[in-house]
Amino acid sequence: MVKNLNNLRADFPVLDQTVNDEALVYLDNAATAQRPNQVIAALTHFYQTDNANVHRGVHSLAERATADYEQARRKVQTFINAAEPETVIFTKGTTDGLNLVASTYGEQNVAAGDEIVISIMEHHSNLIPWQQLAHRKNATLKYINLTADGQLDLDDAQAKITDRTKIVAVAHASNVMGTINPIKELARIAHNHGAIFVGDGAQAVPHMAVDVQDLDVDFYAFSGHKMMGPTGIGVLYGKRALLEAMPPYQFGGEMIGFVHQFDSTWAELPYKFEAGTQNIAGAVGLGAAVDYLTAVGMPTVQAHEHEIVNYLLPKLTEMPGVTVYGPQDPANHTGVIAFNLDGLHPHDVATALDMEGVAVRAGHHCAQPLMTYLGLTATARASFYLYNSVADADQLLVALTETKEFFNHGTVETK
Amino acid sequence: MVKNLNNLRADFPVLDQTVNDEALVYLDNAATAQRPNQVIAALTHFYQTDNANVHRGVHSLAERATADYEQARRKVQTFINAAEPETVIFTKGTTDGLNLVASTYGEQNVAAGDEIVISIMEHHSNLIPWQQLAHRKNATLKYINLTADGQLDLDDAQAKITDRTKIVAVAHASNVMGTINPIKELARIAHNHGAIFVGDGAQAVPHMAVDVQDLDVDFYAFSGHKMMGPTGIGVLYGKRALLEAMPPYQFGGEMIGFVHQFDSTWAELPYKFEAGTQNIAGAVGLGAAVDYLTAVGMPTVQAHEHEIVNYLLPKLTEMPGVTVYGPQDPANHTGVIAFNLDGLHPHDVATALDMEGVAVRAGHHCAQPLMTYLGLTATARASFYLYNSVADADQLLVALTETKEFFNHGTVETK
Repeated sequence: MVKNLNNLRADFPVLDQTVNDEALVYLDNAATAQRPNQVIAALTHFYQTDNANVHRGVHSLAERATADYEQARRKVQTFINAAEPETVIFTKGTTDGLNLVASTYGEQNVAAGDEIVISIMEHHSNLIPWQQLAHRKNATLKYINLTADGQLDLDDAQAKITDRTKIVAVAHASNVMGTINPIKELARIAHNHGAIFVGDGAQAVPHMAVDVQDLDVDFYAFSGHKMMGPTGIGVLYGKRALLEAMPPYQFGGEMIGFVHQFDSTWAELPYKFEAGTQNIAGAVGLGAAVDYLTAVGMPTVQAHEHEIVNYLLPKLTEMPGVTVYGPQDPANHTGVIAFNLDGLHPHDVATALDMEGVAVRAGHHCAQPLMTYLGLTATARASFYLYNSVADADQLLVALTETKEFFNHGTVETK
Repeated sequence: MVKNLNNLRADFPVLDQTVNDEALVYLDNAATAQRPNQVIAALTHFYQTDNANVHRGVHSLAERATADYEQARRKVQTFINAAEPETVIFTKGTTDGLNLVASTYGEQNVAAGDEIVISIMEHHSNLIPWQQLAHRKNATLKYINLTADGQLDLDDAQAKITDRTKIVAVAHASNVMGTINPIKELARIAHNHGAIFVGDGAQAVPHMAVDVQDLDVDFYAFSGHKMMGPTGIGVLYGKRALLEAMPPYQFGGEMIGFVHQFDSTWAELPYKFEAGTQNIAGAVGLGAAVDYLTAVGMPTVQAHEHEIVNYLLPKLTEMPGVTVYGPQDPANHTGVIAFNLDGLHPHDVATALDMEGVAVRAGHHCAQPLMTYLGLTATARASFYLYNSVADADQLLVALTETKEFFNHGTVETK
């Protein structure tokens, strides 16, 4: 049981290293989180004791591996408060889950003249599947715009979502600006117009309590690796009636009822959507990550990240030569902060910060339409998680000051 | 460096356990192989030292993770003798790779009246994607039949593959009968008719030297977990010109050139086919499995399995009340052997063998059309790998004798 967040750091061996002779400060959690010893141990234990293929075997290892895999599914079910384990589909990750929905539900339910509504802040994984579906179907793709400080414009959402709308797909939290979006309200609006709501939970599930029934989302996708689970595992939640009406996404072993030479029938949920050998050890590792997060408590995780952002955001905003994008109010903010330094390419900023041991990301963050909308090509991005601290935020501030001095040859700009 | 196969067993901690008070004899390798310490250590090392998201980062961990991931790709390239690393696509597994080809190349190149030719011994993952593609396109699906002893009938292949054939898709080795198929010859026949050849290498790459250039296959898919790599990682090899002409399979991060609101361009190979965060640690673990297999030497692996089959197959065939399916000649056989005991359901056989510590699989092995073709609903299946021994084969024979005695209340049948 994890109680004190100050003691968590020891669970993450990767954090105990120097980079360029400086203690590592890992602030790239929106790209991928680090794994605690508990998750690595779960993987190792599975491979060393129970490893077998699941469901298809009657021998002891196969039975144990199946129990491990299905227990992981139930852990995820509880974690997001899904009504039934059968509505929790294991995927390769968020991208896989969103493509699944676009290629099955979307393919079946969107026709010429229909509308798909997304937001301009979407990650490419919740944008291109809908853009290409609209192309294939001669449907119309519409974008919900933002308020001046990078929040979703709910008035614009009300205007864009109409009775012609079939699908509304929006991120629960922005991977660039850290904006938390009102997806419960968006789902309500979508339902009022007979549309379904698809949530991209990649940046939300790791950082706050998520209740898919309370949100009343129809589909909701997220990744294991951003919540300290292994790479190559993710989850698609879907409402049972929708999942049951959908065709399969991939064809292969495990997802069938009966296969004849020229036709086939499909398995029950969730197996209809889990063709082939799944990432069994990945699911087990994700289950261990869920245990870890549950022990800490998601409200504690969110409060901890909020404390850091509450400390950092005003200081960063007030720093001369620094522009911060996204909500200025820490209350509606995850631990993701995008910023730029005047006159410097964010890649140079990230490289300079790396020289100080501070790992941030720089680029378009797989959100090019958002960059274009903001009049940018790229930003730097610092993103925090439960093992980060206010001291890490201070390290970022110090490293940014040194970066500015380095590039300005000692001349500090005034804002 | 691994030299002596008798010493390999110590590298696999999972094998050192008892099941139902008997020493475990793991003969379910066609479902999934076990992982050596070296692969588990590679996963642990990655997560403890280099873990970050790849390609998109400029900080040190991201650079190291990217180098690890791309090194794994080059290891696989060398292992299957692909001409270029860009033709090695990381997937979730064989099923994912075959669905990718059917949904992109197949969708683009198969039209009404065209023919797709597969064999009756295909695993569902190399069967249903083509069956459903044929449905969608009003194309004709044709099955190559078998000779009396479960080998692919090359005369029938010659008859079935015509100038109307667009795709020939056949397993390199059967997951049920252990048959090794002449896919180099099948690819030649396909090419003579202007068709492409797709190889399902799931049961071949772990067990024999595979040279995709020598085989002249157009696509070739396999899984990491059957060759001692992690779950959730696989490979699709494809010829560059084909891959370049194909549309993407999934849409998301990493696979784009530029994304505008209403259209997008795609990345170069291999990234066009690697949307979203891939199973980075899985790829690194697969690289470690490739290192392990390379150190042993694939001809050594194949010779070792051949020695076991050469010993076991005649004894099993001669055992009263036992029916063996597939080639009687050990020379054209992988370490996979399907069999039944007269009057016993294979599930009961597998359960009884498990009581003796012997893990085999029972069922249709995701090959229901083959079962129907053979007049069966299910078989038991024992499958061997490099850490198995002739002693394991003896254990199987002893346990089978005890199983027969148990079910016959001491009455041994005569054949």
